[in-house]
Amino acid sequence: MENAVPHRLYLKEDQIPTQWYNLRADMPEPPDPIRLPNGEIAEPEQLAPVFCDELVRQELDDETAYYDIPEPVREMYKIYRPSPLCRAYNLERALGTPAKIYYKFEGNNTSGSHKLNSAIAQAYYAKAQELTDITTETGAGQWGTALAEAADHFGLNLDVFMVKCSYEQKPFRRNIMETFSANVTPSPSDTTEIGKKMLAENPDSSGSLGTAISEAVERALNVPENKGRYTLGSVLNQVVLHQSIIGLESYEAFKELGEYPDIVIGCAGGGSNLGGLIAPFMRDKIKGIHPDTRFIAVEPASCPSLTRGRYAYDFADTGKTCPLAKMYTLGSGFLPSPDHAGGLRYHGMSPIVSKLKADGYLDAVAVKQTDIFAAAVEFARLETILPAPESAHAIFQAMEEAKRCAETGEEKTILFGLTGTGYFDMVAYDAYNRGEMTDHIPTDEELEVGFASIPSIPGVQ
Amino acid sequence: MENAVPHRLYLKEDQIPTQWYNLRADMPEPPDPIRLPNGEIAEPEQLAPVFCDELVRQELDDETAYYDIPEPVREMYKIYRPSPLCRAYNLERALGTPAKIYYKFEGNNTSGSHKLNSAIAQAYYAKAQELTDITTETGAGQWGTALAEAADHFGLNLDVFMVKCSYEQKPFRRNIMETFSANVTPSPSDTTEIGKKMLAENPDSSGSLGTAISEAVERALNVPENKGRYTLGSVLNQVVLHQSIIGLESYEAFKELGEYPDIVIGCAGGGSNLGGLIAPFMRDKIKGIHPDTRFIAVEPASCPSLTRGRYAYDFADTGKTCPLAKMYTLGSGFLPSPDHAGGLRYHGMSPIVSKLKADGYLDAVAVKQTDIFAAAVEFARLETILPAPESAHAIFQAMEEAKRCAETGEEKTILFGLTGTGYFDMVAYDAYNRGEMTDHIPTDEELEVGFASIPSIPGVQ
Repeated sequence: MENAVPHRLYLKEDQIPTQWYNLRADMPEPPDPIRLPNGEIAEPEQLAPVFCDELVRQELDDETAYYDIPEPVREMYKIYRPSPLCRAYNLERALGTPAKIYYKFEGNNTSGSHKLNSAIAQAYYAKAQELTDITTETGAGQWGTALAEAADHFGLNLDVFMVKCSYEQKPFRRNIMETFSANVTPSPSDTTEIGKKMLAENPDSSGSLGTAISEAVERALNVPENKGRYTLGSVLNQVVLHQSIIGLESYEAFKELGEYPDIVIGCAGGGSNLGGLIAPFMRDKIKGIHPDTRFIAVEPASCPSLTRGRYAYDFADTGKTCPLAKMYTLGSGFLPSPDHAGGLRYHGMSPIVSKLKADGYLDAVAVKQTDIFAAAVEFARLETILPAPESAHAIFQAMEEAKRCAETGEEKTILFGLTGTGYFDMVAYDAYNRGEMTDHIPTDEELEVGFASIPSIPGVQ
Repeated sequence: MENAVPHRLYLKEDQIPTQWYNLRADMPEPPDPIRLPNGEIAEPEQLAPVFCDELVRQELDDETAYYDIPEPVREMYKIYRPSPLCRAYNLERALGTPAKIYYKFEGNNTSGSHKLNSAIAQAYYAKAQELTDITTETGAGQWGTALAEAADHFGLNLDVFMVKCSYEQKPFRRNIMETFSANVTPSPSDTTEIGKKMLAENPDSSGSLGTAISEAVERALNVPENKGRYTLGSVLNQVVLHQSIIGLESYEAFKELGEYPDIVIGCAGGGSNLGGLIAPFMRDKIKGIHPDTRFIAVEPASCPSLTRGRYAYDFADTGKTCPLAKMYTLGSGFLPSPDHAGGLRYHGMSPIVSKLKADGYLDAVAVKQTDIFAAAVEFARLETILPAPESAHAIFQAMEEAKRCAETGEEKTILFGLTGTGYFDMVAYDAYNRGEMTDHIPTDEELEVGFASIPSIPGVQ
């Protein structure tokens, strides 16, 4: 007995997309422009000290729908792409659902996640501009690992500022980055001015993504001869552009199967995986080709930017050194509970995803981490992939939708993004298995503390 | 520019083999029979208390060349198979070699290794025989993880005896087995008679695979109503049979490419991955279809059974409770240096692999762990897969052969088995990265201690 649809559908190597897709070009209204703290719209030359020239162009370009993927980038993609579109037959059976559950699996590379898709692009453009150094921050470590691989491949020096609590709790993540020649520093550190300032205020700080970003930007700006740039693994428009490869391959695979998803689900921290996964399907919705497709962003209840945040201009970083983007935000001063193990702990959200949510094209739900680990364990037992906690948010919601179909009898086709593996998250799995994991849902008062850090911008907000 | 051969060749789901291949049926001489300590050849009924009936049949069958893969096994294979045949273009370029380097990658499942191929089969046959419990031992943890997944899938209780030093050094391995509902006990333990005896002799024992096997066998024999059986992840003929799926898929993939390997390389601990990988290619060599193919087993210099061991009947376990097999062995009393991080730390070797070596069909080399970690890091940086230390033995040797081709100009086609990923081996990677890894090559005197434990068998040796 063979299933008509294979458990794992791999496209051929020559079906790897040759172009990324820029959803902004087809949005009824593009996201609001990036601004400086004084309210002015950011010009390319103002971003150029921080990002490579080509990435600045991509960041600010709302018009070009398709970008050629440079050949060296595509050549590296071929080592681990196309990634499979998987049919979760075992999960369907276990849920007794008539729904078809598909997932796009992005964890099949040493970095363990989809982050490599943008890391390769960002490292390539830095090299093409003859830079010597790139810098970044990492929290859970997926982005840092991916960038370490990419920087190593293209022969760039890489400084990673790793949020201190992760640096201490995840030594193996650090080891793997060091295996790829990266220089990893716990943040806050005494190697930058902003780090020194944070340490002076709070010597025992366990760090935050916002602080690590500020340190990485400062480091990039201080590389001699203007040869350093900063890179970011999510949130930015350029990252969503690169991650469109996830959606484009999924789209092509569905075409081969003669199917189309009714529901597309992604976890949302900074929003890049979600934005990339949904891109071509959202294009079809916007153009009226498939107007009824439903899109769901799944975020942690402990860091609920889309469901409880404000849609406002805010800084990407705690140090308030970056330009501002209009996005759903909890305020750069918001810090998720230290009990939060499920990743996706960023205060803001991709401006593209935010705009789609604000304009009603996308729904968002927030889920508790104990629920997402329950879903993760059930999924691992059925599908032989141990998911990253981040990915488990999407798994949870896909299971919810499939259960609904079991009740109504609807044969919906569900697609979710399985962004990565959880091999470096076993401390959290262990806590869950022992029944020692707790949930922390911020009170309205706790959210107000974060909201107070959202800046007021002359003439804008 | 597209390469004619893709970086990763995935067969279609319906190309997953429907039969395993039993190389013994085509060997000029099969391996010597399994014997009891009194020298008698083991009969099926004498093995039946330890292994399921169907596995006993497979273990003792030197005649049936092809075994149908049961449908429930094949159905579970489909979740993670076919595994890709990968072309290591980046590695070839880095080595400046005219050789073509291929590897069969078996790490793309939660267990992280090829062990799942046999775990599924062994769990299925236990379930089909209406047993309730299976037991096993695990060292590095790959086999325990794989069996935990398989036992969970088929609804069996699983007791894993984990070598104590691994239990303590690899808590995440334990966590992942527990995620799949396994009961994990450090060995030696006070839950078995043999464990108590070992602890009485040496309370601080860090354990050994041989002791853990003895404990697992004892536990299986004590499950009420004869509903328990023991399982082993390597060495046995049945395991080599199940692992033939690796070779059969590789063979089929080479057929699609219109190529054939000149050299086939596998790491060798118990020999199951190597035996499975080489099976159909060795058949061609034996039958004179491809008489010149070269086969190379790669083992650690610190545990050199094939290169420095004796070809003799020996016990599989320290407790000397198992039957005896003729194999290359260092003696069940041999203990590799505690500094040894590279896996493959078993005193014996698959009787099939041993016989092929003894009869001149297979070469063997021993390599130092610092050299294999150097190869592992270079490979990870070039090919975006972080290999398990075990797999890195094969990588090292493939690189050696490819470098030789660079000198001679020969365009050889090299195939090696990449058995798994190294995500749970970061302590060892870290030691290597810090320059703190050492090599221990046993002296002849140290080997003699192990050889002294090889039994003398009436009328045989």
